[in-house]
Amino acid sequence: MTTPVLVAIDPVVRGDAADPAASVHALDPTMPSVHAADLGVTRGDGIFEALAVIDGSLQALGPHLARLQRSATMLDLPELDLAAVEAGIRLAAELYESTEPFLVKVVVTRGVEGRDRPTAWAHAFEMTDYSHEQRHGVTVVSLDRGYRSDVATTSPWLLQGAKTLSYAINRAAMREAARRGAKDVVFISSDGYVLEGPNSTVIARIGDVFLTPPPELGILAGTTQGAAFEILQDLGHDVGYRAIRREELDEAAGVWLLSSGKQAVPISVLDGRELPVDHELTAALVHRLTTRTH
Amino acid sequence: MTTPVLVAIDPVVRGDAADPAASVHALDPTMPSVHAADLGVTRGDGIFEALAVIDGSLQALGPHLARLQRSATMLDLPELDLAAVEAGIRLAAELYESTEPFLVKVVVTRGVEGRDRPTAWAHAFEMTDYSHEQRHGVTVVSLDRGYRSDVATTSPWLLQGAKTLSYAINRAAMREAARRGAKDVVFISSDGYVLEGPNSTVIARIGDVFLTPPPELGILAGTTQGAAFEILQDLGHDVGYRAIRREELDEAAGVWLLSSGKQAVPISVLDGRELPVDHELTAALVHRLTTRTH
Repeated sequence: MTTPVLVAIDPVVRGDAADPAASVHALDPTMPSVHAADLGVTRGDGIFEALAVIDGSLQALGPHLARLQRSATMLDLPELDLAAVEAGIRLAAELYESTEPFLVKVVVTRGVEGRDRPTAWAHAFEMTDYSHEQRHGVTVVSLDRGYRSDVATTSPWLLQGAKTLSYAINRAAMREAARRGAKDVVFISSDGYVLEGPNSTVIARIGDVFLTPPPELGILAGTTQGAAFEILQDLGHDVGYRAIRREELDEAAGVWLLSSGKQAVPISVLDGRELPVDHELTAALVHRLTTRTH
Repeated sequence: MTTPVLVAIDPVVRGDAADPAASVHALDPTMPSVHAADLGVTRGDGIFEALAVIDGSLQALGPHLARLQRSATMLDLPELDLAAVEAGIRLAAELYESTEPFLVKVVVTRGVEGRDRPTAWAHAFEMTDYSHEQRHGVTVVSLDRGYRSDVATTSPWLLQGAKTLSYAINRAAMREAARRGAKDVVFISSDGYVLEGPNSTVIARIGDVFLTPPPELGILAGTTQGAAFEILQDLGHDVGYRAIRREELDEAAGVWLLSSGKQAVPISVLDGRELPVDHELTAALVHRLTTRTH
């Protein structure tokens, strides 16, 4: 196992550093680096992104940085110095000594309570190998997310659509899936619409179109899904964003979970019912996703 | 300002230490103590309690410890060594050099990813002074929590009723309140029932009874509210648990927010409408709450 790499990004607020590249420095990843009074720890009050690095390519760096700033805005965090964030990500990727695919996670918290100064770091570490799941698919359960599909509009303070550190529910949903003999989850809104996975975006092939739910439903705009849509279009397929009813998945020609770690994993069984898996298309999609250079 | 005190509780899992008292040791609170890969940081995957210490009394220690274990169970964390947790809390309180009221926050996280060993600490620090709010009341807005009142039953994986570190929503709700010119929040279920504050329990005097919503609605059983009910009964009042409609608060003879930090703060204005404030009763309640010895 390659030793993880940890890089501090300080300052991370736009305008606070004359030279963003000088804001980053390596930390000892075996030592504690976060204060017990950091609001990222005590309140899950912060945001993150996780990027795959494959054959030296930082995948979807631009979309990840843009989404990090969107999350920051939703949390009323200051405008970020995205050049410093990028420098941190690049330094972590550069120092990580592995030719295998790996992840760089970047975290920005509201900082130590009372200090009014966000804390940020980039952390490079081993990526879970999803090649088995990519080939064979995963067993998934759908779980009620409790929110209506219009909650992002009616209650923006619920932060739906922001990628926050407050992921305890996402983790609990994965444990519930395990109790039900499944490996992953598709969240459904209380009014019956497909949302997203706890750590992934859902794409369903319905009729002849590859569809994903729109971010307006209070879900994350998927960076890997974005890349997958480009690839699918390049392969001659139609893609689109629209609200999808849970029942529609039962009739889909294929359903996939997409994320930086998973790339594209087909759902083979949903709530105990077998779904068709297009192995050839999935293999082509995964190949294109893992060999992209941006 | 008194210097905060930080105490490690390690191990915190029941059965892992022969002598729970030996599990605790003071840390330097000015130094980082948490790993960047701790799931408490990266996923808000952990639990906490905050106890007031007034005149040397650890308030509601037993209820706080019991609730910590309930939260641990809801998050599928191991059974905690509550004797070690208590030792950590007591050491933090003992080392904190102040005669003013202060808080001890105890945190248990799922630990560093992959290590399968929870991280825990107790942190003693200054308490916000709520004496002004106790005397004059606070302006509050009600906000839709997005969940139905039966969500704890229908979707237990949403962890409603567990006191987790994933508090980004609670913090966002407080910022929304500030935008609306208010100081605090009462969450309402999507079907119109009073839930709780982001950091407090609601008590409403309706008719001649002091009521609070039952934990079955997916809210925390309030430790301060529990003590307040005992005091109110001792003062000759009737108390009870029942679901309360948002509209009922407009006709209440008084509404209070209760927490370890606030003790009891009356709501003077709710959603722009003045509510009656019983200053005499509030003063008596606060006095009894702050002079209790357990």
